[in-house]
Formats: sequence, structure tokens, C-alpha cells
Amino acid sequence: MEKIISSQPIYQGKIINLRLDEVLLPDGRKARREVVEHPGAVAILAVNDSGEAYFVRQYRLAVAEDLLEIPAGKLEPEESPAECAVRELAEEVGVKPKELRQIALYYSSPGFASERLYLYLATGLEPVEALQQAEETLQVSRISLPEAIKMAKEGKITDGKTLIALLLAADLL
Amino acid sequence: MEKIISSQPIYQGKIINLRLDEVLLPDGRKARREVVEHPGAVAILAVNDSGEAYFVRQYRLAVAEDLLEIPAGKLEPEESPAECAVRELAEEVGVKPKELRQIALYYSSPGFASERLYLYLATGLEPVEALQQAEETLQVSRISLPEAIKMAKEGKITDGKTLIALLLAADLL
Repeated sequence: MEKIISSQPIYQGKIINLRLDEVLLPDGRKARREVVEHPGAVAILAVNDSGEAYFVRQYRLAVAEDLLEIPAGKLEPEESPAECAVRELAEEVGVKPKELRQIALYYSSPGFASERLYLYLATGLEPVEALQQAEETLQVSRISLPEAIKMAKEGKITDGKTLIALLLAADLL
Repeated sequence: MEKIISSQPIYQGKIINLRLDEVLLPDGRKARREVVEHPGAVAILAVNDSGEAYFVRQYRLAVAEDLLEIPAGKLEPEESPAECAVRELAEEVGVKPKELRQIALYYSSPGFASERLYLYLATGLEPVEALQQAEETLQVSRISLPEAIKMAKEGKITDGKTLIALLLAADLL
């Protein structure tokens, strides 16, 4: 346990906030902690009736690379994780799931960020009109689930949430 | 691809920096991106000759929880990921590995952070004197690897890097 002695807001942004805390450690010493506040996010492994999973490829400025990821997005205010999953699937790949099952809940970078990720498995997919978000440029693709799981095990997937979803799916299906 | 038009440094810290970029999207529109710069980190699944993996439990202020994690730490300047892995294992759990094998390389939160994580499997462990870092309060424990993998599959591990390392280990050992 660390008790916050003082908390200084550094930046309030669109997706993240940054604050700098001074904390009291259990042994009585003090330390400073940089904390990135994030609203949380969902990511969805959506598998169609042919056993193919949906992926989006997009440029990620923070890592200066195009990454292959499962559909994902941050939670909007008042939105439940399941609602967010359904919205992101519609916006990014144009499908709506009949079944949605939470398969993991984890922290992406607990050393410096509050981001909590809800991972879902979506099946029974039906088409809806795709509405891509204004600031995203996505290329959608489908890969057979066994092939995608193989890619995850062979180091060909470099996005954390996608890696976790595929490695868990190896046992689920 | 997104071309950076302008980049504004917001904060330069001990572990992270924050910058705000204006970018040109492929379709000609402009967008703003918040980028958390991180030096990168390593995490190590260290398994002793009895088949037990080492874990550290520590309070993570960013998520306001005690988390069970594998040993990990950020890269120091000029330090290779393998050197960092050996240093963190000595500092956090007091062991030195005879074999160190990289099992994954991934981005923890590519939507907003540059953090790249190197995951290692360490075996052939020998004791060294443990030197805990000044600002960390860690509780070290050992869990049999099959039991730890079961915990990962059952949702009892909520730290991303630990989850990935354990799910990959299910296939490695």
C-alpha cells in the first residue's frame, strides 16, 4: 500500500490524463509516482461461423509502426464494457455478435498507467453497416483462428491485447 | 502512416515523457495524438529446477491494487534487454539464470504509449544476493508453473506481461 500525500495534475487530455503523486511507502520513506490515467478499453476477438477472426491493421504513432490488432477501443463515459465491445465491432469491422463472452480483464501497464482492458470473445456475427471513426484509418482482414493462434505463438503478433486474446482462445475453442 | 506536423513536449519525467503531436492522416485530414514515451521494459518468467516460477507482489499506485507479477523492470540507458533481465532477477528475487531465452516482444498499450516489452524465460537459477531497489516494496513468492498457468487461464492473473508469459509457457515446457 502507498498513501498519496499530494497529487499534482500535469495534463488533462482527450484520451489520457497525467498526474504526479508523492506517496508514503510502508516503511515511512517517500517516493514520487508518475500516473497516466486512462478510461479503460475493450478488445474483441470476433470469430465468424467459418472460424475466421477479424483483425484491423492500423498505424500506431506511439510505436511508429503498423500493427495487426483485434478490434478495440476506449470506454466512453457511462458506457458498459459490453456496450463498448458491440459499438467498436460495428464501427471497426461492421459486425454485430449474437454471443459476447468476457475472457479476460487485465492491466496493460500497471507500472505507470491505469488502463484496464476487458477482452471479449464474440461469435454469431451478423453484418451491420460499418462506421469508421473519424480519426482512424483501419484495414480490416480475416485470418483463420488456428492460423492466428499460431502467429501469436510464433512471435508474429506484437500487440499485447491481441496476443492475450489469441493465447486464451487456444484453450476456448 | 501518419506524418508528424508538430510535436509539443508536455512533461519530461523519471520513467515517462508525455508529448502532444499534430499529425497528417493518409486522407489529408489532421489529428492530435497524445504519446507517452517509455524506455521499454523486460519481464522474466524465472523457473527453478523444481518447476516453480518466481512472482513478486507489489502495490501498483496507477491501478490502486496489489498485483501478482513476474519480475520486471524498465531498461536503463545503454543497457541491453538481456542485461536488464539479469539485473532485475538479481534485484527482485535474488537469482541468476544459466539460460535466458526471449519468448516474446510486444507493445503493452500501442494506442497511447511507446512501451515495448521483452519477455524472457529464465532457467538454471542460482542464488545471488538480493538487492531490492530503493523505492520498491516487493513480496517474493514461488508457484508451481502448472498451477500458475492454470491461474492465468482462469482469470486470476491481471497483469498483462505476466499473463502473456504464462500463456506462452503453457506451450514451451
